[in-house]
Amino acid sequence: MSDSLFADLLISRLRREREVPLQIQIANVIRDAITDGTLKASARLPSSRALAAALAVSRTTVVTAYDRLSADGYLHTDSTSGTLVSDKLPLSITPAPRQPTARTLSQRGAQLIGAPAGIQERKGAFVPGVCDTDFFPYQTWRRIQNRYLGEQHMELMGYSNPGGYLPLRRALSEYLCVSRAVQAAPEQIIVTMGSNQSIDLCSRILADVGELAYVENPCHWATPILLRANGLEVEAVAVDCDGMKVERCLRRPRLVVMTPSHQFPMGVTLSDERRHRLLAAAERWDAFVLEDDYDSEFRYDQRPLPSLQGVDENGRVILMGTFSKIMYPGMRLSYIVVPPDLVDSFAAASLRLYRPGHLCLQATMADFIADGHFSKHIRRMRDIYSARRAELLRCLDQHFGDALETSRNAAGLHMTIRIRGLTDFDTAVSRSLEHGIYLRRLQTFDQGDPEFRDGFLLGFGALDIESIRPAVQTFAHIVETVMAKAASR
Amino acid sequence: MSDSLFADLLISRLRREREVPLQIQIANVIRDAITDGTLKASARLPSSRALAAALAVSRTTVVTAYDRLSADGYLHTDSTSGTLVSDKLPLSITPAPRQPTARTLSQRGAQLIGAPAGIQERKGAFVPGVCDTDFFPYQTWRRIQNRYLGEQHMELMGYSNPGGYLPLRRALSEYLCVSRAVQAAPEQIIVTMGSNQSIDLCSRILADVGELAYVENPCHWATPILLRANGLEVEAVAVDCDGMKVERCLRRPRLVVMTPSHQFPMGVTLSDERRHRLLAAAERWDAFVLEDDYDSEFRYDQRPLPSLQGVDENGRVILMGTFSKIMYPGMRLSYIVVPPDLVDSFAAASLRLYRPGHLCLQATMADFIADGHFSKHIRRMRDIYSARRAELLRCLDQHFGDALETSRNAAGLHMTIRIRGLTDFDTAVSRSLEHGIYLRRLQTFDQGDPEFRDGFLLGFGALDIESIRPAVQTFAHIVETVMAKAASR
Repeated sequence: MSDSLFADLLISRLRREREVPLQIQIANVIRDAITDGTLKASARLPSSRALAAALAVSRTTVVTAYDRLSADGYLHTDSTSGTLVSDKLPLSITPAPRQPTARTLSQRGAQLIGAPAGIQERKGAFVPGVCDTDFFPYQTWRRIQNRYLGEQHMELMGYSNPGGYLPLRRALSEYLCVSRAVQAAPEQIIVTMGSNQSIDLCSRILADVGELAYVENPCHWATPILLRANGLEVEAVAVDCDGMKVERCLRRPRLVVMTPSHQFPMGVTLSDERRHRLLAAAERWDAFVLEDDYDSEFRYDQRPLPSLQGVDENGRVILMGTFSKIMYPGMRLSYIVVPPDLVDSFAAASLRLYRPGHLCLQATMADFIADGHFSKHIRRMRDIYSARRAELLRCLDQHFGDALETSRNAAGLHMTIRIRGLTDFDTAVSRSLEHGIYLRRLQTFDQGDPEFRDGFLLGFGALDIESIRPAVQTFAHIVETVMAKAASR
Repeated sequence: MSDSLFADLLISRLRREREVPLQIQIANVIRDAITDGTLKASARLPSSRALAAALAVSRTTVVTAYDRLSADGYLHTDSTSGTLVSDKLPLSITPAPRQPTARTLSQRGAQLIGAPAGIQERKGAFVPGVCDTDFFPYQTWRRIQNRYLGEQHMELMGYSNPGGYLPLRRALSEYLCVSRAVQAAPEQIIVTMGSNQSIDLCSRILADVGELAYVENPCHWATPILLRANGLEVEAVAVDCDGMKVERCLRRPRLVVMTPSHQFPMGVTLSDERRHRLLAAAERWDAFVLEDDYDSEFRYDQRPLPSLQGVDENGRVILMGTFSKIMYPGMRLSYIVVPPDLVDSFAAASLRLYRPGHLCLQATMADFIADGHFSKHIRRMRDIYSARRAELLRCLDQHFGDALETSRNAAGLHMTIRIRGLTDFDTAVSRSLEHGIYLRRLQTFDQGDPEFRDGFLLGFGALDIESIRPAVQTFAHIVETVMAKAASR
């Protein structure tokens, strides 16, 4: 087929819809032409330059479309004869091979499954991000739940009402105001089924495909995954001892997702100066700050960790919290606090996207808070975690001394450490695993800072105090051998 | 600023990323230039034609970008002087008005909250799509749940393992094979938290933004919402007495979402001829069919409703099922059956997107099935619903006679009816609501067929048999008055 004929074919088949990127439309039309036989195997395609001119699109657009089709095996490029329809074509349009391939997955799907994931471990050294369920008040919880799971509370078997179960939102409103200086009327609280859903909801309802979201670097592995899965462009901004370097945010984002009161994983707090600068910028940008308040319930010193939402006067901050770190990881009950003017939209969107339910769980949680069990459990666990943290710091200091750099996080269920001289992290991790010690590398959370210095995230939340010393001993011994080996090379 | 200067500015700031549509990139750069003062109020912009030429992009791309910025209030067009930067600019970059506006929501967010939603009603005439929880075996359920919720099963407090709790997947595998002729090894079953999540997972992992999904017309309100929320282009294909008119699928989709064994809401079954045509096409297209098997457990005649998945030989069908229609709506526990080669990808994606948990609920459900309570409950409810359906048909026939057209659905918890001569549906619906009768219009499910004939979806699942006759009497009386009124005009 001649170049001009080919261009005519494309033009006749292109359906320039605003919501469909041109390069995807072009790729689809060409692929259809190949699969329906209009384009035969080994047929030559016009150069990207010629086609771009004929279609009056940028050359990048055509190149992208060609690349995509080559990746899918429909085209192959050859330095002498240019871009051709693949001659192995029958393969690519006959039954799928029985193992997962990029062919059967979407690009975002393939990107997704390649991304880091959470851990399964429930307990042990140094499993991060999980609380200790050994101390969970099972009896109390069962008693309250059985109160609601039955004929006399059939209304709790239906779908959830918009925004969630009101008594739970009331209990939360009171708790947040008292304990976290968060301004939240019950109606402002939207119940979600896990922090992932909170981020998913915010990014869909506030940002469109291709819009920008700033995250911290390093940050939790899940945050960029969820933003990208929703088509947002993610730019990571470095963190120093005063938190995210807000002044580095030069472009206009739609969302800023961050952990101001207790940065994950580094543990620093966002300085007042940066808080004010960020809030002012958010107003100027018409952007929203998603404050992930994931574990501030556990702080071990006098210094309060004020929430950013508490000082926001323009309804630019959405606060997200979770029960997973206090109650139990698999609970999947969390919440966001949204500005009054957005409440209805968030409730409506949540209803349509997730069709929420779990009213019995919400009712049980509501009573658990209202009856004081929640605060009591937090106080109890705070003491337990505080002791574990102190013991871990003590043991680390003893074994590594000056070689140790640690965030000495004053909150949460983990601390970050770096060990001067350690370079072979892979071996350290695999050796430790052989000895039943789980190490999470800081690298997991780096979003591509060339100067990023690797280290470890040590969880102490799910580790009995008496197991800390032996665990650190084993860990220290492994690190020594690894470093000695590296030195002897 | 001169046109060429302006073009240079854009070119210098554009960061042509393949995943970001050009029109969005252009719009963002212009908006940034406005907000950071590079472009002053009332500044004139080049014509879309001139800018398109300068940037070597299609004119449509520029027009789309301009339209978007005008919609957001950054630009305004004026027949004499062309496109200008808005002079009311300060407004659009100062605090948000305190009610939801397109300004604060994303385009997809605004579209989302404007879409139809599910119902809150748990019981009554003629609430659709919900089962009757009056007959739920609460005691048995509590007993099993209390078995797992406690110190002795702490492992169930953690996050869910990839794909879900294995004993539940085993129990489901056996049940599906026996009762639904579904081929499913336990590993092929991915546990999800509701059918919305099932559709969300499939559309993200199998299709990219801008790719095509076919749905049935009419179809469940949630299906197009979820596909569009994930950036898919949705095309609805009409349904006749043999189900979806598969032969009308002329373009190449990535996904076909349908209800072959019991079309929602019309109740027809996809013919064998169309089943084979569709499966062959899916193979040719390298597309997947998402079979929503939402309520086939409840069938009231001898005719079996074979699943499409059961006859698929090429791993092109993904079957989705839910417990909401059998157990209780708020349970939010469902599943998909995926081809063996996709299992790992689906499990990995689910882990990253949703961070699933609820192991205790999954364990309870597993025993509920394995111990035979599930089949027993289905048999019991089938008899109850069957009697209600018969009674509803009887009453409708008596009151409407020949004016009544009904699908006489032989399965499910609802039937569709049309009443010859009724035109004023709004009044019929509002009047009925005044009398405590909930009517769902078929229009809710129409995806834009100009010839679509409106009617009602009557749910009988959550309606006591003795309430049916009075409800139909009231309903019939209201319809008569509405029709008389219309005739008298």
